This record gives sequence, structure tokens and C-alpha cells, in this order.
Amino acid sequence: MTGPTPRPEVAAMHAYVPGEQPKDARLVKLNTNENNYPPSPKVLEALAALGERRIARYPDPVCGALRESIARTLAVGPSQVVVGNGSDEVLKMAAEAYVSPGERVGCLWPTYSLYPVFVQKAAATEVRFPWSLDGPTQEEALEAAPADLALAYLTTPNPPFGLPLDLDAVRRFALRRPQTLVVSDEAYIAYGGKSALELVREGLPNVLVTRSFSKSHSLAGMRVGFAVGSAEIVAVLNKVKDSYNLNATAQAAAQAAWEDQAYTDAVVARIVASRERTAVRLRGLGFQVPPSAGNFLFALREDAPALFPKFRDHNILVRWFDTPGLRNGLRVSIGTDDEMETFLRAAEALCSQ
Amino acid sequence: MTGPTPRPEVAAMHAYVPGEQPKDARLVKLNTNENNYPPSPKVLEALAALGERRIARYPDPVCGALRESIARTLAVGPSQVVVGNGSDEVLKMAAEAYVSPGERVGCLWPTYSLYPVFVQKAAATEVRFPWSLDGPTQEEALEAAPADLALAYLTTPNPPFGLPLDLDAVRRFALRRPQTLVVSDEAYIAYGGKSALELVREGLPNVLVTRSFSKSHSLAGMRVGFAVGSAEIVAVLNKVKDSYNLNATAQAAAQAAWEDQAYTDAVVARIVASRERTAVRLRGLGFQVPPSAGNFLFALREDAPALFPKFRDHNILVRWFDTPGLRNGLRVSIGTDDEMETFLRAAEALCSQ
Repeated sequence: MTGPTPRPEVAAMHAYVPGEQPKDARLVKLNTNENNYPPSPKVLEALAALGERRIARYPDPVCGALRESIARTLAVGPSQVVVGNGSDEVLKMAAEAYVSPGERVGCLWPTYSLYPVFVQKAAATEVRFPWSLDGPTQEEALEAAPADLALAYLTTPNPPFGLPLDLDAVRRFALRRPQTLVVSDEAYIAYGGKSALELVREGLPNVLVTRSFSKSHSLAGMRVGFAVGSAEIVAVLNKVKDSYNLNATAQAAAQAAWEDQAYTDAVVARIVASRERTAVRLRGLGFQVPPSAGNFLFALREDAPALFPKFRDHNILVRWFDTPGLRNGLRVSIGTDDEMETFLRAAEALCSQ
Repeated sequence: MTGPTPRPEVAAMHAYVPGEQPKDARLVKLNTNENNYPPSPKVLEALAALGERRIARYPDPVCGALRESIARTLAVGPSQVVVGNGSDEVLKMAAEAYVSPGERVGCLWPTYSLYPVFVQKAAATEVRFPWSLDGPTQEEALEAAPADLALAYLTTPNPPFGLPLDLDAVRRFALRRPQTLVVSDEAYIAYGGKSALELVREGLPNVLVTRSFSKSHSLAGMRVGFAVGSAEIVAVLNKVKDSYNLNATAQAAAQAAWEDQAYTDAVVARIVASRERTAVRLRGLGFQVPPSAGNFLFALREDAPALFPKFRDHNILVRWFDTPGLRNGLRVSIGTDDEMETFLRAAEALCSQ
């Protein structure tokens, strides 16, 4: 017996393949850009204090306390903030709410490889703005991008290389396309680059900023992100939001982490310093390492495809993309200082062979 | 300045309005059909044992351990199970994967009022199979339903009344519509009714069963549900699933609750007994109370709209729907034995005034 037929766009979809999440705790895990330092002690306190009642009852459907805390810090209104199950969910909601079948959705390329999945799901057409280290630059690619886009995902700093986007280039891009929803994906903004939040505060009605708790707040396991934009855009996103999209633990953990800004700042500073040291040492080993504003480096060397499994043999997991233009590089998350020392020693051993 | 324009279907959408989630712990909360008993002690142990690493690292994107545990108990394969952020998410994924714009989606009416939101979002057409306590019955409504449906949400037991669906009627409905994805929403199945899992095991290729941890496992705050169907359907649903849709705490809590079946069985038996006692006493107060197979009762009385705020004055929150055909009733969740005694005393006081 055959069964029902899925939507043709879904039948044709290639599901996003997340980076490997191995259970082996001995592995030095530098493949999915988490923050490998522990979360703020306030997070563990908040989780321990949650209590049976908040586990058994429905959570706050609109994440009121968390949204108010975020809005206060960012000097926007709570009605300008919507919280999601990771920034992935708010990135997805933007496409669900603003992209009709057949419309065009743009993004720099290379970039975060999840966007094409949203485009396929929306039965829309993907428009790539190609850029590379040899030129055109990301900003030149933005300047040359087409006008008729329902939505554009701009990413700063932009993985896998980690280059930040010039804010004036983003402003020009948005001003020239008042009908395009310009999503500034800022998952890594704690580590560098300029936020487009300034454009939201300036009143640009087509800019939406997204953020994550996975990359700088050590909460990847809790799945929390958010978006900030005009109250009008946020009201539309709320229509497509799942009614109870964040569980009680995620809300409590994120609020505790958010309000311990001093802890996050200290950890981020440590990771940034380690990133710079790591880049210098990798360049010394013959890698080309573009200056990254994220918590990761993209390290290019001819033999990257061969090095990838050798690192694994050393119990070190980095990311290798089997994608044109990326095959000669390894994306290395900046872990703890100890983890980076282990990684660099392995790199030194492997590169001197 | 105006901004970008949302999809017309989204602009026209009315967001689902969840039942009130008040923070006041003194309220006797009988409005959203949670299980008001605490979760299994194993749940709290699992959460306490989670550790910093699982909070800081991405969770298992495919919920492997939880899916295997569910599959083992239900005697299906792990590839037949997909886990969601509440059963709401798997109900939504079914529409996202199988419903194209302009297609028709059916459901009994009245039923769970979230389905129409999915239909609107899919730019599809809602087809209601009307039934009522005075007839036609739910089964007669199914018999008279149209053939050309992309998807149908059948719900057993079906809120807000709680009547179960005859399994043979569901089987006939599915067999006659091999191209329709028939979703058996079984959020309340622990409390009564026959599961369509039997149809999945019989090999019907168009039946998908959904379940929730919110109603019988005391985990509404954790947001976990799942769907069981053919491996083919589940593979399609996985394509539209968010890549990391369940956080680490949700996965750990659900697995602990699922594996403490004896605890759940005992709590469910207690709630079922209380439901029957509550129905008898409400009938004694002049309410019409259809026999419910859920953890709630729908209690009809002419003065229900006036009683609703009076219960609130007694710090008791029940649910009143401002919907044709439902305005003369109150939906009362079955809470703990103590809560139900408080509710019934208030009802006795209010109804004798």
C-alpha cells in the first residue's frame, strides 16, 4: 500500500545535517561552535529552584519575564522581542511569515547552511550573493545583490569564515529594499562585529536582528534564541510562533544567563583572546586563517580533507564541509584554553609529519 | 515608513489563544488539562543529574535515547517515532509536510481549536465535520465527511467534551481515504478511548498517532510529545522538523517519566476515579456532564457564562469558550483530589445561590 503524498517541495527537500553530537565525553569537541565553558552558576541555581509545579504546568507561552529582561538590557520595548527555540526557530519564523511560494530569498554565500532549508520549505527561490576571500568581498556582494527579495539573511560575523559585515553596507542594503525583510543573524555577535540593532533603534522598519544563547551563554543544550525588530514585525512573527515554544527550563536558564552579564563578558573575553592566540599559531603551521570575529576559525590548508580524520584519531572533533569552496579548510570552534592547547599540540604533530 | 508585507495568509491569521497561565500559585488551576500531580521523582533525579556539559552542548538532534525507549514500549521501530516540542509541534509538522496551499484539511467540530491555525498557516481550506451531543454523533460525522482531504485531524478522546472515537470508525475513515494523512491526536489517551496505534501496527500507511507528555506525565512545562506512524511518513516529518527541536532537559525528563510507567499508571487511575466522582456530583448540581474519557469534564448549565467569573472569585480557574455551541459549558480539568474537593465545594455554594 502506498500512503499519502507529501508536498512536492518537502519531497524534494534535503534536511539540514547538523554537526555531529557525539556522546563520548573524552572528545575535544570543536565542531559546532558551542561555548565549552560551563554556564553561569546562576543557571544551575535557577534550574535547581524550578520546582515540580513549573515542570508540571504549561510554561509562560510568551516568555514574558525573559522578554522583559532582554528588552530592558537592549533598550527596546518588550513588544519588539520574540523568543524562540534557538535562533533557528526565529530565523525559520521569519521565512514562514514573510515568504510566499515563488518569491526570492537571498543570502551571502558561503554562510550558515540552514537558510536554504527554510527557502525550500517555503517553496521559494534561493538567491546567493557569492563572495570569497579572493573577492568580491561580502560588502561588494551585498552591493551587487538583486532588489526583488522577500527576505534576506545577512549574517555577522558570518560563518564559516567569521568575517563581520560592515554596518553601513547593511544599512544601505536595507534602505534600498524597503519591502525586503532584512534578517541580521547575529548568533556570534558577542565575539565581534557591529550589531544591526542600531538600525532597529533608528527605526528601519524592515530590519530584524536575531541572537542566540548557544554561542556565548553556554546554553546550546537549552535551545534559546530571540529576535528584535519593530513591534509590527514581531506581532506578525507571533502569529506563526508555536503557542508554547519554550519550555520552563529554557526560559529560566536563559533569564539567569542573560542577567549574569559579567560572567558572560569574562568568558567571552577569554575565548576572544584564545582565538587570537590560536590563529597566530595556526598561521605558523602554514594555515591561512582569515581574521574571525566569531568563536571559531576557518583554517585553510591544501591537506585539510586528510587532516580532518587525523584530528579525530587524536580524539579532536573539528568541522569539515564537503562543499565547493570549503573543502580545503577546517572550521575550528574555540573551546576552553586547555582544549585549544590539546588541539594545537595535535595540529603541530600532524603538520610536521 | 512602512515595512515588508507578510504572506496574505499570515496577515489574515488569528493566532491561537492558549488558556490563561497565571503565576499565582494560590489559584486552583483547572483550565488547561495539565496533570496537577507532581511528575515522577525520577524526573527530578534526571534533571538534577543533567550536568553542565549537557546544558552547554547541543542536544541530541534526533532524540535517539527517548525515541528508542518509546519505540520499545510501543512495539514499533525507532524509525517510526518522531519527537516534538509538545504534540503541538508534531501536529503542525504533519500539516507542513503534507498540505499544499488550496488543499482541504478536515476535523471533527468542536475539537481542539489549534488545528484551524495550522490550516490557515498552510493556506489550506478547513473542512469541519459537525457533530453535537444531540446528534449527529462523532462517528456519524466521520461517516459523512468528504473524501478529498489532504489531512484529517481526528481526536480521541476529543476535547472539550472528552468523548472517545470508535476505532472501527477511524479505521473505515482511513481505509476509504488512502491519500489522506489521518492524524489520530491522542493527547488524552491515557485516560480512556482506544488508540489508533493498532491501525499503524496493522500497516495502514496513512495513519499517524500523536501523543503528549503534558496530560498524563505531568510534564506540560517541559514541552514533549511524539508521533508514531510508518517509517515513510516519519522520514518526511523529519525533513520539516527543526534540527534541534528538543532541549536536553526535555529529552531527559521525558525519558525518565516514560520509563516510570508504574508511577504514571497510578496517577492516571487516581485522576480517572476522581473524574467519575466529580461527574456524579456535578450532575447532582444540575449540570449536564457527558461521559468523558479525558482528564477533564465538560459541564453544561444555562448559567455557565455567569458561573465562570464566580469560580475565579473563589480562586478557581476553569475554562470557558466564547464559541458557538460551547458557551453554556465549563471545561473543568481534573486536578488533585484536594483541588477537586475545593472546586466541588465552590460549585455547591455557587449553584445553591
